[in-house]
Amino acid sequence: MSGSETPRPRVPTGIAGLDEMLGGGFPRGHVVLVTGLPGTGKTCLGLQFLLSGVAAGEKGVFLSLEEDTPQLLETARQFKWPVDAAVEKDRLKIVRLDPRETRQSLHRVQGELGAELSKLKADRIVVDSVSLLNMLSDDEAGRRATLFALAGACRASGATALLTAEADPRHPEVSRDGLSEYVSDGVLVLGYSTAPDGHRVGLALRILKMRRTSHARTVQPYSIGPTGIVVDAKAVDFGAG
Amino acid sequence: MSGSETPRPRVPTGIAGLDEMLGGGFPRGHVVLVTGLPGTGKTCLGLQFLLSGVAAGEKGVFLSLEEDTPQLLETARQFKWPVDAAVEKDRLKIVRLDPRETRQSLHRVQGELGAELSKLKADRIVVDSVSLLNMLSDDEAGRRATLFALAGACRASGATALLTAEADPRHPEVSRDGLSEYVSDGVLVLGYSTAPDGHRVGLALRILKMRRTSHARTVQPYSIGPTGIVVDAKAVDFGAG
Amino acid sequence: MSGSETPRPRVPTGIAGLDEMLGGGFPRGHVVLVTGLPGTGKTCLGLQFLLSGVAAGEKGVFLSLEEDTPQLLETARQFKWPVDAAVEKDRLKIVRLDPRETRQSLHRVQGELGAELSKLKADRIVVDSVSLLNMLSDDEAGRRATLFALAGACRASGATALLTAEADPRHPEVSRDGLSEYVSDGVLVLGYSTAPDGHRVGLALRILKMRRTSHARTVQPYSIGPTGIVVDAKAVDFGAG
Amino acid sequence: MSGSETPRPRVPTGIAGLDEMLGGGFPRGHVVLVTGLPGTGKTCLGLQFLLSGVAAGEKGVFLSLEEDTPQLLETARQFKWPVDAAVEKDRLKIVRLDPRETRQSLHRVQGELGAELSKLKADRIVVDSVSLLNMLSDDEAGRRATLFALAGACRASGATALLTAEADPRHPEVSRDGLSEYVSDGVLVLGYSTAPDGHRVGLALRILKMRRTSHARTVQPYSIGPTGIVVDAKAVDFGAG
Amino acid sequence: MSGSETPRPRVPTGIAGLDEMLGGGFPRGHVVLVTGLPGTGKTCLGLQFLLSGVAAGEKGVFLSLEEDTPQLLETARQFKWPVDAAVEKDRLKIVRLDPRETRQSLHRVQGELGAELSKLKADRIVVDSVSLLNMLSDDEAGRRATLFALAGACRASGATALLTAEADPRHPEVSRDGLSEYVSDGVLVLGYSTAPDGHRVGLALRILKMRRTSHARTVQPYSIGPTGIVVDAKAVDFGAG
Amino acid sequence: MSGSETPRPRVPTGIAGLDEMLGGGFPRGHVVLVTGLPGTGKTCLGLQFLLSGVAAGEKGVFLSLEEDTPQLLETARQFKWPVDAAVEKDRLKIVRLDPRETRQSLHRVQGELGAELSKLKADRIVVDSVSLLNMLSDDEAGRRATLFALAGACRASGATALLTAEADPRHPEVSRDGLSEYVSDGVLVLGYSTAPDGHRVGLALRILKMRRTSHARTVQPYSIGPTGIVVDAKAVDFGAG
Repeated sequence: MSGSETPRPRVPTGIAGLDEMLGGGFPRGHVVLVTGLPGTGKTCLGLQFLLSGVAAGEKGVFLSLEEDTPQLLETARQFKWPVDAAVEKDRLKIVRLDPRETRQSLHRVQGELGAELSKLKADRIVVDSVSLLNMLSDDEAGRRATLFALAGACRASGATALLTAEADPRHPEVSRDGLSEYVSDGVLVLGYSTAPDGHRVGLALRILKMRRTSHARTVQPYSIGPTGIVVDAKAVDFGAG
Repeated sequence: MSGSETPRPRVPTGIAGLDEMLGGGFPRGHVVLVTGLPGTGKTCLGLQFLLSGVAAGEKGVFLSLEEDTPQLLETARQFKWPVDAAVEKDRLKIVRLDPRETRQSLHRVQGELGAELSKLKADRIVVDSVSLLNMLSDDEAGRRATLFALAGACRASGATALLTAEADPRHPEVSRDGLSEYVSDGVLVLGYSTAPDGHRVGLALRILKMRRTSHARTVQPYSIGPTGIVVDAKAVDFGAG
Repeated sequence: MSGSETPRPRVPTGIAGLDEMLGGGFPRGHVVLVTGLPGTGKTCLGLQFLLSGVAAGEKGVFLSLEEDTPQLLETARQFKWPVDAAVEKDRLKIVRLDPRETRQSLHRVQGELGAELSKLKADRIVVDSVSLLNMLSDDEAGRRATLFALAGACRASGATALLTAEADPRHPEVSRDGLSEYVSDGVLVLGYSTAPDGHRVGLALRILKMRRTSHARTVQPYSIGPTGIVVDAKAVDFGAG
Repeated sequence: MSGSETPRPRVPTGIAGLDEMLGGGFPRGHVVLVTGLPGTGKTCLGLQFLLSGVAAGEKGVFLSLEEDTPQLLETARQFKWPVDAAVEKDRLKIVRLDPRETRQSLHRVQGELGAELSKLKADRIVVDSVSLLNMLSDDEAGRRATLFALAGACRASGATALLTAEADPRHPEVSRDGLSEYVSDGVLVLGYSTAPDGHRVGLALRILKMRRTSHARTVQPYSIGPTGIVVDAKAVDFGAG
Repeated sequence: MSGSETPRPRVPTGIAGLDEMLGGGFPRGHVVLVTGLPGTGKTCLGLQFLLSGVAAGEKGVFLSLEEDTPQLLETARQFKWPVDAAVEKDRLKIVRLDPRETRQSLHRVQGELGAELSKLKADRIVVDSVSLLNMLSDDEAGRRATLFALAGACRASGATALLTAEADPRHPEVSRDGLSEYVSDGVLVLGYSTAPDGHRVGLALRILKMRRTSHARTVQPYSIGPTGIVVDAKAVDFGAG
Repeated sequence: MSGSETPRPRVPTGIAGLDEMLGGGFPRGHVVLVTGLPGTGKTCLGLQFLLSGVAAGEKGVFLSLEEDTPQLLETARQFKWPVDAAVEKDRLKIVRLDPRETRQSLHRVQGELGAELSKLKADRIVVDSVSLLNMLSDDEAGRRATLFALAGACRASGATALLTAEADPRHPEVSRDGLSEYVSDGVLVLGYSTAPDGHRVGLALRILKMRRTSHARTVQPYSIGPTGIVVDAKAVDFGAG
């Protein structure tokens, strides 16, 4: 229990504009939830976060529930990120949790995953997505146990973790399960900015919560371009709902 | 695990304006969800997609849960598409899954369908509709297993697949089951454009998500004319809700 | 499996303005759903459809779940339709399915109804209402089986069928059960037009979906006058929601 | 099965403005549902309907689930209606169904009530309220059976019946149970007119549905004065929702 | 069964402006529901009602489910009401029903409470709150039985009773349980007035329903000041929703 | 049962602007609920409240369900609050209730917690959060028992307590469980102020309810700065919803 007031070191996200909003990046060791509607770039953000770490000499683990490894690699290649080199050099490890193998996947998350992650000595972890992980359990208690186990395993490993989650279409700033927010130190929302008449204008993100750091509360437009996610400088308003 | 960065070849949809929005067509091998309210042309889009493939020398399979084969053929003939020739030449195969034969249909999807589809060596598959497929199961776990099995069978076959789904009337950009989005690489929404006062103006579509390719995010008006779906050049705004 | 591209012959609805919107009437053999809030004239439309057929020398069957035969006849007489003559000449047959005799009614629909309808050699069938039919089953699976059996019996008989359904008050363009749309080739919505401030202006209908034919997508005002439903020429806007 | 086209005789409601909207009153023998939020005068309308019949030499029955007989009489006396004389002369009979005696009340409605009502030879029946009747059953099937039995008993008795029901606060034109509309020949809604900014302006009623008669579709302001309900001449707009 | 048309005597509420809206006070013997969101002064209104009776020589009973006796007394003292004197002189009796002692509390309400209340010979009764009473039962049937028993006990005692209830946040004019309105002769809503743009302006109350008396239907601003609730003279509009 | 009318002494919150709204602070011994959406500073407010007490020579207990002790200390250090000194001098005690140890945590709250808290002789208690505490129970009855036990233990200890709760995203002024309001003497809402077009403008708080004291009903902007929460002087409007 140290009395030091040194703030946590930051883990740059690989997206300059977002790092600026965060005061340098995610606080190291945080579990950060990224919620968003389909097509807002959650998987892309996760890959970008890991490969940015690889470029800085760090190690990353991608826990994939949504896509098989070849598809995931292809997504990364599309942005010309050196994903194959990273995998070959053992700087990036893709762990596939098949949602069709319900029991095995659940047992793994609630059981050996903690040891696995610690052994991998990763600096960064991405779980894509906790929404699909939640579907493996048929009751609230099972979902809760799984999520707590997952977050606990991430924290125990010492890595900085990013969990993706589908947004609730009725409340796009809330995850579908309504639980993931409880296990996270921060919440990043990928969504749309809206004009006063309610029409969607473009992609925009907002940091809803980030423990142990001050952060921008503006809504920042972003785009998914040929080199990944780029956050614009100009802030916009989110619609109220 | 190839390091090649060649983007996936594209599968033209048979609708020029839509291909343009997609940068040439659906990425080959993708499972694409088409959601829409009743009467927005989901079945028509599916048939058009298959017959466009037939015209290019490809083979298509239409898995029909909603309509019997004669009705489906009639729908295609209405647009003067050479559907009978395609069936005769074995370029188009219509597979009827009768929703009244619940158990058999479910067993087939979760069992032999994968082998069937692979044996057919189809380039394109349409499933019309996963909403009706979902109704065959009485619990969430059954629906999930069926959807994953279906998507897995489509992917394993190597074909590019298009799944249609009813939109949730409360959130017309979301499928009724709220699950189909999870098994899909892309989501195409057929709906309506709305005037600022909320009145519906006309049919309009939007690509909500398409993995492994950049795509237009505009809302494009379209119509269902005597030769099928035609996407207009001019983009419009979707209503917010 | 004929290669003929002759479009389906049309069955005039008995309402000139509606026939125009449909390009001549309902496609023969279609099962068409008519949804609407209470008091929008669903039963009236059904009777008008049948008696228009009688006037053209056709035979009609009215499957009544909501009203007893005398009340139904009285409703028709109010519009001065020659309903008694039609019944006497065996051109119109009213079949009463009593919703209080739950089991018998369900067994009949799921069992002998198909043979009954075929034996009657009707050209037109009306079922008023599938909402009440749905109430006879206590679970989703039962409702689904009943609806599929009903639609199957109608289609097998060769007649053109019109099913009425209560609209969901939250989404007046959707049936209360949310299932009836799946067994129908077309959906006709009876509702209200609304002023920009959301106030109801008057009765208005819209063809939401009609397979195997192009159709108007406008919202057309109508009234229930002394001779039945009359559709106005001038189109209006439906409210968005 | 008479071929006569004589319209049903009318039963004046006791409220001049409402009779005018109905073309003379309720069609004789109809079961009419009156839905409304608390405090809109449903019980008052029921008593006024009965006492108007008494004044015309008819006999009325009030089936009370909400209030005990003394309270009900007091309510009527407040409007200076000769309710005590009516009871003494056997022109008005108050039947109390105590909602605390669940089983007995349900058995009575589903059993002997039909015979009771027929024996009473009433011209008019009021049931206040079916919402409370519905609460006696714990499942949908029980509520449905009770409602059908009640409506059947009313119809079999030959009287004109008025059923009151609480409105759903989310959809003030729909009854809370969503079932009562199915057993009724007509629906009368007691509610509020609203200004364009959504504020309630005053009490207003609308005839939503009335079988076998044309009727006004306007929204008519009314008030509950010292002599009961009075409907104003000037129509107003209801809010949309 | 008296034929007297003398209106019920009134029980002044202790709040001048409210008495004016009611034409003198609550009709004696009524069970009146007071619904409101948290912080709108429901407990305060209940205490004020009882102490106003005490000042007029009447006796009051406060059935407290929310607060312990000392806290309740403290609340009253804050307004400088002579609550301690009232308790000492046996003009005010506080009965604590501890919601943690679920079974005992339920048995008491459904059993001996009627006799207890009658023995106490109170002129006024307050129950604070029926929302907490409802929570003691785990099913709808239990809640209904408890509420009917409570209202029956109040009525049998001859006192005028005031029941407080939490408002449904989605429909602030409806109680959370949606049942309490059925056992009440009147409904008083404590809420907020809203500006045209939907912002809350200040506290405001409305009489939604009051049997056996005419009453104001305006929305009246009020405040909770150092001497309790004060109703302003000027009426305002409630928001629609 | 004292007749003294001395108002309860106040417990300053550590936030000058908030103390002003409360007339000096929370009434001593109150259980106050703080609800808010993620990222509105609930944990920060709790820590600030405790450390403000420590600075005044009081003792505080932090019951943490959301974060482990080291993370919590780090959060406090970030604001340069002397949290380590407080822990060392035994003026601040952090009690960790691990939500993964469901049974033990529940037994503790429902069992020995009361004695524990009393033994600690704390002046101030914070529970962060009751939302997570609620998740430990799988049914409403369990949640209710736990909440009542917790509030009872806090009250019995004589301390002033602050409970944090997640807001319901549909109704940001209501806690997610909808129960916590029942065990609290006051409700403080942390949320956003909104512009007339519905866009969020900035953080803003409101005192919804505070028993036994008058309080400001304005909406006050606040910010989370380098020294903790600061409430601005200028009041703003909350959005209606």
